[in-house]
Amino acid sequence: MGRIVEVTDVILRDAHQSLLATRMAMEDMVPACEDLDNAGYWSLECWGGATFDSCIRFLNEDPWERLRQFKKLLPKTPLQMLLRGQNLLGYRHYEDAVVERFVDRAAENGMDVFRVFDALNDLRNLKTAIAAVKKSGKHAQGTICYTVSPAHTIEAFVDMAQGLKDMGVDSICIKDMAALLKPQPAYDLVKGIKEKCGADTLIHLHAHATTGVTLVSLMKAIEAGCDVVDASISSLSLGSGHNPTEALIEMLEGTGLETRLDKDRILKVKEYFTNIRPRYREFMSEFTGVDTEIFKSQIPGGMISNMESQLKGQGAGHRLQEVLEEVPRVRADSGYPPLVTPSSQIVGSQAVFNVLMGKYKTLTGEFADLMLGYYGSTISEKNPEVLAKAEAHAKKPVITGRPADLLKPEWESLRKDTEALENNNGSDEDVLTFAMFPQVAPKFFKSRPDGPKNLGKDPVKKDAAAPAKAEGKSDGTAKPAAMSGPVNYVITLHGKEHKVTVAPGA
Amino acid sequence: MGRIVEVTDVILRDAHQSLLATRMAMEDMVPACEDLDNAGYWSLECWGGATFDSCIRFLNEDPWERLRQFKKLLPKTPLQMLLRGQNLLGYRHYEDAVVERFVDRAAENGMDVFRVFDALNDLRNLKTAIAAVKKSGKHAQGTICYTVSPAHTIEAFVDMAQGLKDMGVDSICIKDMAALLKPQPAYDLVKGIKEKCGADTLIHLHAHATTGVTLVSLMKAIEAGCDVVDASISSLSLGSGHNPTEALIEMLEGTGLETRLDKDRILKVKEYFTNIRPRYREFMSEFTGVDTEIFKSQIPGGMISNMESQLKGQGAGHRLQEVLEEVPRVRADSGYPPLVTPSSQIVGSQAVFNVLMGKYKTLTGEFADLMLGYYGSTISEKNPEVLAKAEAHAKKPVITGRPADLLKPEWESLRKDTEALENNNGSDEDVLTFAMFPQVAPKFFKSRPDGPKNLGKDPVKKDAAAPAKAEGKSDGTAKPAAMSGPVNYVITLHGKEHKVTVAPGA
Repeated sequence: MGRIVEVTDVILRDAHQSLLATRMAMEDMVPACEDLDNAGYWSLECWGGATFDSCIRFLNEDPWERLRQFKKLLPKTPLQMLLRGQNLLGYRHYEDAVVERFVDRAAENGMDVFRVFDALNDLRNLKTAIAAVKKSGKHAQGTICYTVSPAHTIEAFVDMAQGLKDMGVDSICIKDMAALLKPQPAYDLVKGIKEKCGADTLIHLHAHATTGVTLVSLMKAIEAGCDVVDASISSLSLGSGHNPTEALIEMLEGTGLETRLDKDRILKVKEYFTNIRPRYREFMSEFTGVDTEIFKSQIPGGMISNMESQLKGQGAGHRLQEVLEEVPRVRADSGYPPLVTPSSQIVGSQAVFNVLMGKYKTLTGEFADLMLGYYGSTISEKNPEVLAKAEAHAKKPVITGRPADLLKPEWESLRKDTEALENNNGSDEDVLTFAMFPQVAPKFFKSRPDGPKNLGKDPVKKDAAAPAKAEGKSDGTAKPAAMSGPVNYVITLHGKEHKVTVAPGA
Repeated sequence: MGRIVEVTDVILRDAHQSLLATRMAMEDMVPACEDLDNAGYWSLECWGGATFDSCIRFLNEDPWERLRQFKKLLPKTPLQMLLRGQNLLGYRHYEDAVVERFVDRAAENGMDVFRVFDALNDLRNLKTAIAAVKKSGKHAQGTICYTVSPAHTIEAFVDMAQGLKDMGVDSICIKDMAALLKPQPAYDLVKGIKEKCGADTLIHLHAHATTGVTLVSLMKAIEAGCDVVDASISSLSLGSGHNPTEALIEMLEGTGLETRLDKDRILKVKEYFTNIRPRYREFMSEFTGVDTEIFKSQIPGGMISNMESQLKGQGAGHRLQEVLEEVPRVRADSGYPPLVTPSSQIVGSQAVFNVLMGKYKTLTGEFADLMLGYYGSTISEKNPEVLAKAEAHAKKPVITGRPADLLKPEWESLRKDTEALENNNGSDEDVLTFAMFPQVAPKFFKSRPDGPKNLGKDPVKKDAAAPAKAEGKSDGTAKPAAMSGPVNYVITLHGKEHKVTVAPGA
């Protein structure tokens, strides 16, 4: 028996967020839970990130109820969530009491492991959430957003890890959302943290698969002593998702390292999601291969499609290449923020503006805020000329303090506003839902009694347990898994042409 | 500058053989050749394997002419082929003079690196071809087919490598056609060969990507000293194909190892094939993810679909699982052959017979021949009971000598038969084409003057430089890239049901 490598599966959260636009309905996850819970995972990521937003915006599903259901369905395995620090699951900074209340309610409803990150890696944006998790007695995981820039040396990341340790985190996550972490830096980073922060520092590596190299990075990180790694069962893996859990298990054979995962359980879950996945074809990411251009542009795939649609909206779809080249310059001017929600959108939009209107002729409000410190501090100095423009544009001063320190107590007013909404249930959870999504929550509360919607097509039938590969073969029959939405054809029938719309699977 | 890792790209041969059923037309490869030739590869695999068969059977293209074209288009980079030892590119053993003539003609027409393998790893089936390559002054690469069984220890493979070295090969290929080679065995095997056969022994690793772990295996093999690795440019990679060249380049950063590949050239080739690939959608392999079940069954994907169609032909499609469990037993009974053409088909068919008719109640002629030594020797002893049945069935004795030693000189009769065919051009090349494909060659010679066919749909237009992802978006329109062959629907039109066949791209 060698050293055990622990595994977190992200199939219930980040996998479908990355591959199926976060649209998976709870009822499609329920049947997999028993096997997942008994497979031997360190934790199961199942909440947070974009799932909260998606639940109330698209699925008419109460995310707090989803959490309580997971707690019942997964009694043996710690539940894990992704929390955007002082932003919670929303898109602005919240006052500390709101952050504390959120963590308290999440813990009370069943959350066990809180992975807390900040888009700028500003530790001050993590401290309230981390302290709240500690207070709740749950597992506080402090997160380093991995990125590449002249300032982001191994030493800088190791220092950040020490900063997180000093806050009292239970573990440290290296979060590689854009699949930029190559094998050697993965090795060096884990080694560096273990050396500086102590060999008993629990390190958890989260990597996407987009560039095709990160399974190798997991291997090298494990060789350097990484304790826990994220993966996703193969039928919801790869592309802009994650490395397949089964490949992770197999690659360790003979190394003296092993997981404690039950392959038979995992095979059952794999086959289950093989059948579920095609039902969400209209939400499927088209990207299924690898993209190593990200290393050059450092622009994650999701960000490129955002920029493309912004450009097309301005009739400038042909200028994408210029924008891709502008992004790294805007990023340098703004002090090399990691590119992750919301910094990726802020930098990307400004790059579009620079190309269309001239360099910093027009600033977005968010970009000015980023320059002036209203999202937190960045690792590098900002370009002073651009900073001056931001001050002139926003008519606000530069701040160097913690952004949330500017906020006034807001819980009571949020409660009052929530209580005025039709169908609110009077709970703190509803106040938090409203706080994070003030536009969407009122509509959601109103329609909540109708119950959750399943946006998957062709609900799976009783006999659907057979692997999907049996569905359509190379004998020329249809491949339902590979079609997307209704298709329009002109067909000829009895010598006459007809326009016909055919729904796949019909 | 660290140690250089050399790379062979298989995009012109095994990539489209694995992913597009070997259907790519020469004219669709021509535009990529200049960039490929200048990218800095150790070699470009572009001929042999199933391409010869596919050329004459499906593409009405003279494979010898393809080879001459490649030689002109790729003047700077060695051309590489896959040769099935004494089977050449056909499916039976050929007499030595035919093997020698084939190698001579291939060398003369432009081939530089001959990767020679035998499905049973029987060195006697390689020796004539290897000697002929040496005689032609070209690069002779001896191949170990990697497989997993109780008999296939690292030591056994290392001994085989030494056997190849003793034959005078210029390099040794580890051929992992089913993606079974895990990282630690990859490391141990390369290390073992370097230790036993000398540190200057050139080792070349060929791995498919099917199980998802082999990019890690390439990394570990490289760490152990592997000199050359096979990869395929990303737009024709992964699934049952190969690891992406771009990911290989990137994963080495910071390790002190590097390739000498030109990323800009490779990006151009990637973009080119991104546009070409969808045109071959009807031949595309459906499998794009990873399959780690192969580790358990050791049955490559292509073999499973063969067995499935055999079973369905017998109305026994539901018995696939039994057959999958029978295959390892048949393999053990027959002395643990690697499962690769033709042994995979022979073992698979016998497993189907065993399930349908009772254990060894009926033997296929090929299985009896395999048992009796007519394909060569296997690493382990065969099951004596099954061997007795094979003798009784085939009414032939066991042989222990080299199968080709039983063959009489056949060149002159092959020449005479070829010269009797309409439109033969009188060349040795035509005799060899007829020798390998006696059924197909006569039809091919007849239709050869019509020139090559391109089976790709929607020939690429001038403006096709835009990435293919623009073709079908998540707006609900069809994704042409994902459909395969005609589709049968029942549609309702003016209140009446009709059965309609719709061809994709219509």
